[in-house]
Amino acid sequence: MIPARIGITLGDPGGIGPEVVLKALARPALPAASFVLFGHAAVVEAAERTTGLRLDQTKFSVVEPSAELSPSGAHKPAADNGAASFAYFEEGVRAAREGRIDALATGPVSKAAWNLAGLPWRGHTEYLEHLYPGAIMTFWSDRLKLALLSHHLPLRDALTRVTRDRLGRFLISLAGAVQAVRAGEAEFLVAGLNPHAGEGGALGREEIEEIGPAIEDARAKGVRVRGPFPPDVVFRAALDKPGAFAVGLYHDQGLIAFKIAAFETGVNVTLGLPFVRTSPDHGTAFDIAGENRADPESMIAAVSLAAELTTKRI
Amino acid sequence: MIPARIGITLGDPGGIGPEVVLKALARPALPAASFVLFGHAAVVEAAERTTGLRLDQTKFSVVEPSAELSPSGAHKPAADNGAASFAYFEEGVRAAREGRIDALATGPVSKAAWNLAGLPWRGHTEYLEHLYPGAIMTFWSDRLKLALLSHHLPLRDALTRVTRDRLGRFLISLAGAVQAVRAGEAEFLVAGLNPHAGEGGALGREEIEEIGPAIEDARAKGVRVRGPFPPDVVFRAALDKPGAFAVGLYHDQGLIAFKIAAFETGVNVTLGLPFVRTSPDHGTAFDIAGENRADPESMIAAVSLAAELTTKRI
Repeated sequence: MIPARIGITLGDPGGIGPEVVLKALARPALPAASFVLFGHAAVVEAAERTTGLRLDQTKFSVVEPSAELSPSGAHKPAADNGAASFAYFEEGVRAAREGRIDALATGPVSKAAWNLAGLPWRGHTEYLEHLYPGAIMTFWSDRLKLALLSHHLPLRDALTRVTRDRLGRFLISLAGAVQAVRAGEAEFLVAGLNPHAGEGGALGREEIEEIGPAIEDARAKGVRVRGPFPPDVVFRAALDKPGAFAVGLYHDQGLIAFKIAAFETGVNVTLGLPFVRTSPDHGTAFDIAGENRADPESMIAAVSLAAELTTKRI
Repeated sequence: MIPARIGITLGDPGGIGPEVVLKALARPALPAASFVLFGHAAVVEAAERTTGLRLDQTKFSVVEPSAELSPSGAHKPAADNGAASFAYFEEGVRAAREGRIDALATGPVSKAAWNLAGLPWRGHTEYLEHLYPGAIMTFWSDRLKLALLSHHLPLRDALTRVTRDRLGRFLISLAGAVQAVRAGEAEFLVAGLNPHAGEGGALGREEIEEIGPAIEDARAKGVRVRGPFPPDVVFRAALDKPGAFAVGLYHDQGLIAFKIAAFETGVNVTLGLPFVRTSPDHGTAFDIAGENRADPESMIAAVSLAAELTTKRI
């Protein structure tokens, strides 16, 4: 088996990203892969001081951004840190696009810092969606796997996206994207939009007019998909079933379930790209950054899953 | 301490209600209370045959409905069973209204059977809301307590209920209703409506225009209430905090969280009535009725909680 080449970005220099990356790389149980860090050597050194760990540079290479940047590492949203974390990410994405790495695990960035740096993206996913409009936001954990039809939209706007056409195409893309990275057959369980999945039309008609037909369209294309199920049942039904993916129709429908079921071990996975991108399920946590208190479990899960989902592709 | 007088309705004669009621009453760990069953003696006897248990009628009295009814006990939605389960419930509510019992735990009924019997109510809660328009739907479990601003409405309609006026009044009523039944101070954690609670208006304005002001209004009336919190954070934040109540703005927002956190032990509690009403968090389960396979844990929790929440009132 050819070992996967996994890129890892440090995230915001002032957040917990560099610390959890170092802690993750110090774990002997990491999968057999070669790792490339994207970030400033000075930021790695600061994290070494925080953690008392030393990065073995015979095993892990560091790629610094080409732009002239010197992030302060302040533990708050700052323009210099925002510009740096974006440069790490951009460099990592470029390496993945050019085939120099197979997957990219991204450390947490600050949306506020990107804003201060004048960057137009809300976060990693929005930048990737700009490059790859078919990008799909999914969440993986031991207990639950989840895909979202839409994510960062006001709830009222998210409702207007629940159409036969959009959802049908989404399910077909999702099934293809999952099959590209994962062995074994997957089954997709689709949530309804209304209480009790509309209860035959008494509590809403989207299930009859849009969601049901979209599921039929996807099934006609060979996708193993069922639903719509009552929203308060479908996520529990998908729990602990390795082959099952729950499909949420809007951000919180899926993430309310995911964050209760998968606390600490959740990984955000962007599918539908020519490479796998994962990230831990937490933010920069400026309030505890620099104190050696950050828990690396989610970053370890993100790096491990990046390697696992790459195996099928290389 | 005066023991509470707890009424228990059998629910649909063809469902698992009679079985789980008998199993619950057979438990030695039930709270010190006097119990009154509402249902036909013949339905109790059928459940005795199913379970092999015998109801000790020196300890538990049975009140039969006054109407002439003879339910078949068929394990499916049927008009005769629907009429019977409604009569048990109506009789129990009458006893509670007249002060003959302090609380009512209701066995599961079939909405379809009520429909077939020509009854206009969707279920227990809708009947209670008809009698008491200020009724509040809440859900209690060891890990999470939840109140819902609205419940059986299409999601689009539920969104229009999220107004400063409605939510403000709801929070004030809820706080009063909780204080009436529960010792100790409660804190209410209110969900936002949009992803990340609207993120300062970028992802929706209800938090700024409606929810935040409603919380301020309630706080000005002395309610301990905080929010709006991101919907995918607030329910996890309320987990395992005995004094905390999460407030969901629509049916699935709260129940997606509750059903994952509280599987098997959840109890539905209607507050804002002159008596406490509880029910288990499951339905009639016609598919396993009559087979002595039904798990009584949720019914036991419903009966125990009915007794516990009555202590402060009597």
